[in-house]
Amino acid sequence: MTNILILGGGGVIGQKLARALVKRGHLRGRDINSITLADVVSPAGFPEGSKVQSLTCDMSDPSQVSQLINPETDVIFLLAAIVSGTAEKDFDLGIQVNLTGVLNVLAAARATERCPVVIYTSSMAVYGGDVPDPITDLTYLNPQTSYGMQKAVGELLLTDFSRKGFVDGRGFRLPTISVRPGQPNGAASSFMSSIIREPLNGQEAICPVGRDFLHYYLSPKRCVENLIRGAELNAAELGLDRTLIMPGRMWSIGQMIDAMTAVCGPEPAKLIKWESQPDVERIVKGWRFDLRPDRGLALGFQPDASFEDNVRYYVSEDLEAS
Amino acid sequence: MTNILILGGGGVIGQKLARALVKRGHLRGRDINSITLADVVSPAGFPEGSKVQSLTCDMSDPSQVSQLINPETDVIFLLAAIVSGTAEKDFDLGIQVNLTGVLNVLAAARATERCPVVIYTSSMAVYGGDVPDPITDLTYLNPQTSYGMQKAVGELLLTDFSRKGFVDGRGFRLPTISVRPGQPNGAASSFMSSIIREPLNGQEAICPVGRDFLHYYLSPKRCVENLIRGAELNAAELGLDRTLIMPGRMWSIGQMIDAMTAVCGPEPAKLIKWESQPDVERIVKGWRFDLRPDRGLALGFQPDASFEDNVRYYVSEDLEAS
Repeated sequence: MTNILILGGGGVIGQKLARALVKRGHLRGRDINSITLADVVSPAGFPEGSKVQSLTCDMSDPSQVSQLINPETDVIFLLAAIVSGTAEKDFDLGIQVNLTGVLNVLAAARATERCPVVIYTSSMAVYGGDVPDPITDLTYLNPQTSYGMQKAVGELLLTDFSRKGFVDGRGFRLPTISVRPGQPNGAASSFMSSIIREPLNGQEAICPVGRDFLHYYLSPKRCVENLIRGAELNAAELGLDRTLIMPGRMWSIGQMIDAMTAVCGPEPAKLIKWESQPDVERIVKGWRFDLRPDRGLALGFQPDASFEDNVRYYVSEDLEAS
Repeated sequence: MTNILILGGGGVIGQKLARALVKRGHLRGRDINSITLADVVSPAGFPEGSKVQSLTCDMSDPSQVSQLINPETDVIFLLAAIVSGTAEKDFDLGIQVNLTGVLNVLAAARATERCPVVIYTSSMAVYGGDVPDPITDLTYLNPQTSYGMQKAVGELLLTDFSRKGFVDGRGFRLPTISVRPGQPNGAASSFMSSIIREPLNGQEAICPVGRDFLHYYLSPKRCVENLIRGAELNAAELGLDRTLIMPGRMWSIGQMIDAMTAVCGPEPAKLIKWESQPDVERIVKGWRFDLRPDRGLALGFQPDASFEDNVRYYVSEDLEAS
């Protein structure tokens, strides 16, 4: 029997991951005994009496974190973070959660003395600066946002805590998740879901970049499958560096909109307004998109086959379910 | 008039840097008004009434750090650290000083709202793992010691605090400093000075690696000159990444001993005992030595011309002066 903790369990990926784990019923060769969803606001939406429980936890408070993680905790999905745009505006909050908070989680996991598996979500935002394309798993990390810096620090901590035998860490640099259901958030990448999601809900959306803007994407569905695969890996497969790129695919904004039109007809695309947003543009234009996720592909992680698939997943998993 | 703070002012480099700055009298185009040496034990050795004052400071205590750094502080040399061997044995102490302590210094520097210059000493220990040689300024950081991990985190913080305009940071990955005067310390590299220093003082020394062990070195004298050059740089010369390799040279243990013999005759080398030390070997054999410090060379940083020079500097600066 295995006990799973999802930090950031109230988020889109945390919720979908919990549902996928409930459906699956087992992880790392053992039946799932419990799934605990923790977040700053107690995550809702699971039936009473199920294996899923919800708790509040402020990761920046070490006492709350050490109460949450105990010797019964086998697997921790560390998904919680202050998102990129917010971490850029509120530097101290980003440090408190994305750096001190991650250190608190790793310290509490170490204190169990049972070397729990920790799956950590990093970001493509760790890449940047004067580094040549293409970007590989072993490209120098020179983040140009505070969010990216904090994620890079988390990666270094994860590998060292793993090397010391304190945790069994597996880090994944996530592509931008699209189509993300729910509300827009403070991530600079938020529009990369809004321009598909809002029109499919009959609402206008603002696109602050041109049709030819290239970026690197993964659907929530594939992301969850890959996180579970990340938990299932043997540590030996990861070698001396515990973090790798989670494979995605590069699309232009135009290709994404065309995919929406191919799946859902021409009306939604008419709801997209093209408006400059300098704060967002400055961040997203520093992000890298020519990525070569060789390690992840060799380990069997799967990107989406087409952006049409991403649109279809949103329609079937989120739009029709809501 | 400029006010300088040297954190780690009790160490070998801190002491030599203070003497060099006193002799020089100016920095960044302004006369030096004061030099404050801070360390866990109050640094000694400077005449009363000079511009040099000594204070104690525990970097892991934010209140002590914020008392030390104030709006009068123009330039901070952040040299203090828990050394590699000690940080590997006492993980928590390494985190407290090398990670939290660095964050405390950067936060206090930011709080002055005057964007002080911060010169940060990183280490070649940031390199490691399954990364191909040669190592450049932009080689992926995959440290295989906790010390190296903490130094890599400091680099990321330095660049981001600089990007945000909180400090004007300049980081340097130092080669192993040899010949280091004084006592052996907890650094895994400590023997790389001991095998020269102790014999020149008529004492035995232990060498835990073979004559063909290659490593990358710089003399204390050149290191101090380069740190001052690092303070003098214009920030624009550093671009989007604030840390670079401080140029050194690769020598084998045999070449170092031969250089000592060339300068001081055959007797000292007879005092070297060859003995295995598995803890030390495990760390130092993970360190990289095939380094290409292109950025530093382009910016005018100087390595030593020969290891004979390193031996001569020790004899004239330290052995004869003591």
